[in-house]
Amino acid sequence: RTHRIAVIPGDGIGQEVMPEALRTLRSAAQRFGFALDLREIPWASCDWYQAHGEMMPADWKAQLQGVDAILFGAVGWPATVPDHISLWGSLLKFRREFDQYINLRPARLFEGVPCPLANRRPGEIDMLIVRENTEGEYTKLGGIMFEGTEREIVIQESVFSRVGSERVLRYAFEQAMHRPRRHLTVATKSNGIAISMPWWDALAERIGAEYPQVTVDKQHIDILSARFVLQPQRFDVVVATNLFGDILSDLGPACTGTIGLAPSANLNPERRFPSLFEPVHGSAPDIFGRNIANPIAMVWSAALMLDFLGERAAHDAIVAAIEAVLRNGPRTPDLGGAASTTALGEAIAAAL
Amino acid sequence: RTHRIAVIPGDGIGQEVMPEALRTLRSAAQRFGFALDLREIPWASCDWYQAHGEMMPADWKAQLQGVDAILFGAVGWPATVPDHISLWGSLLKFRREFDQYINLRPARLFEGVPCPLANRRPGEIDMLIVRENTEGEYTKLGGIMFEGTEREIVIQESVFSRVGSERVLRYAFEQAMHRPRRHLTVATKSNGIAISMPWWDALAERIGAEYPQVTVDKQHIDILSARFVLQPQRFDVVVATNLFGDILSDLGPACTGTIGLAPSANLNPERRFPSLFEPVHGSAPDIFGRNIANPIAMVWSAALMLDFLGERAAHDAIVAAIEAVLRNGPRTPDLGGAASTTALGEAIAAAL
Ligand SMILES: CC(C)[C@H](C(=O)O)[C@@H](O)C(=O)O
Ligand SMILES: CC(C)[C@H](C(=O)O)[C@@H](O)C(=O)O
Repeated sequence: RTHRIAVIPGDGIGQEVMPEALRTLRSAAQRFGFALDLREIPWASCDWYQAHGEMMPADWKAQLQGVDAILFGAVGWPATVPDHISLWGSLLKFRREFDQYINLRPARLFEGVPCPLANRRPGEIDMLIVRENTEGEYTKLGGIMFEGTEREIVIQESVFSRVGSERVLRYAFEQAMHRPRRHLTVATKSNGIAISMPWWDALAERIGAEYPQVTVDKQHIDILSARFVLQPQRFDVVVATNLFGDILSDLGPACTGTIGLAPSANLNPERRFPSLFEPVHGSAPDIFGRNIANPIAMVWSAALMLDFLGERAAHDAIVAAIEAVLRNGPRTPDLGGAASTTALGEAIAAAL
Repeated sequence: RTHRIAVIPGDGIGQEVMPEALRTLRSAAQRFGFALDLREIPWASCDWYQAHGEMMPADWKAQLQGVDAILFGAVGWPATVPDHISLWGSLLKFRREFDQYINLRPARLFEGVPCPLANRRPGEIDMLIVRENTEGEYTKLGGIMFEGTEREIVIQESVFSRVGSERVLRYAFEQAMHRPRRHLTVATKSNGIAISMPWWDALAERIGAEYPQVTVDKQHIDILSARFVLQPQRFDVVVATNLFGDILSDLGPACTGTIGLAPSANLNPERRFPSLFEPVHGSAPDIFGRNIANPIAMVWSAALMLDFLGERAAHDAIVAAIEAVLRNGPRTPDLGGAASTTALGEAIAAAL
């Protein structure tokens, strides 16, 4: 069997960590007997934008025709292109136009990773953040009135659809059903955000009634963030809107040591469109060009991709290789070592 | 000199911690030679709502006429009154109708408070969160279309005014000017929230130009939340919109041990209207009625009130008393002790 993968390194350290993901993928292909048809894509980067005045060519969808998945590095280079242009012109376009409505973001505390929280043991933190990925707070709707005057006022609209909210809630309940603890935390802020969030709460309650085996816990985003730090062991699956999921999926990984490890899967579960797999970390201009970025989030994202493509054994083997390397080294500087991005990638491939 | 204070215990542990704040205030009054005119207010509670069908009487403003400040316990009792009703009918009404546009929330790591973060020393975390408190993401604007059908869609609007954003940004820069590090972090999410947040960024930049002595650091809320955990020592003053300030002002205190300590000041700096002082923690139904709530956030909030009313020496003495009690005990259960709310309040008053 052959998996056709679009490979988009993007900006900054995306370009440095991607080769290590490909190295791992090639090893996995050999060991598990599948073939890879890799198509390297030069666009969806700020360099491309500077040369072409747009983040992606007009025929980007045609170019991705027939692809099974997209492996994505990072995008954004604020020194030359404002973030809202680079992101809306690439990553957020993929998520929306390919209807990747589930953003899955696991956070686990591994052996060998110094935890910023006191007295936490490996295994004690193991959560899965299920983030709505296509609508909600991320919009370009609204506008500015009385612009340039003292009366200037800005309206920003959020849009939640029943379809969009129901499917992510239901997906999260299903995930919870397949985990031993069967616990779901629903992030909200219905005490302050008075139209959409009470509606979201009611929807969560209605769908929760279909899953009596799952214990549900509704928490406002402020105290929920605090509890990620104070009682991270309490969390199993956490479901959230686009914005709250964005925050929690940086915070959760931070509580387990570093966002340099956190992978993500942007899924169109029905496979009507290609899904996209990317590290949670961004392009990290501050460390780009030194070959010191930790490639684990990228490699783990590639593993999530294989899992989604039906290669569960390969996924498990890659995660085991990551665990072994985290335990035994080498380590990149973010984890207190001096190893290069390349050295880490080689170690993972070797462990595989 | 006499300070006229409206005392609103509100719901749940608000009723248990308030007497300890009053105990401390009375000691401070005696020691520092000022008088207190305390008016206990029975409304702005869910009990009141159940009896009267509204959170506050129609003439609430008249009843608060001439008051210098409001000392507030907590509001919210979701078992009987939905949060968005109880909060919008009381606390959020005060903030808006009394134009308490600054919400000041300090977070400090004290000696004697076990820190959930590893290897942090007392004094190492010392941040001040300046939150916009009247507008932004907290609105009742928007609505539901195609209600009850599969096409159901919800619009939720956020509203930012130039006046509202400018004054909170400027206030934060001024605060930064008065602190040794002169550092300001501006929370944003302009890469995702595409109308209001780029506008907010531009405004922050424009106002920042007036404060060349302050170093400014713009950070997206996702990575900013992660950095509260990973590098809390980096933060000095942090300015944020209503929602982001809400999140960060629970997260910051969580990183210093417990939100049971965190105070807040809802300020109308010009004193056209009374300001309101309240703990960050809520009514905590889970521990109410057992006399075990930590009263320190409430007492510290009372100290912030005295500071605002010109009693700086009394403020400093109360904070010193809190520090002494945190160092030497007694401790309430949230800090690993077995002392009661009352015992802690008595210890603070004694230390004073
Ligand atoms: C209770 C709630 C509406 C309130 C808020 O979100 O402002 C609280 O969390 C706070 O921070 O004071
Ligand atoms: C870059 C940004 C638009 C993006 C997001 O907010 O979704 C990123 O933070 C993420 O979490 O994937």
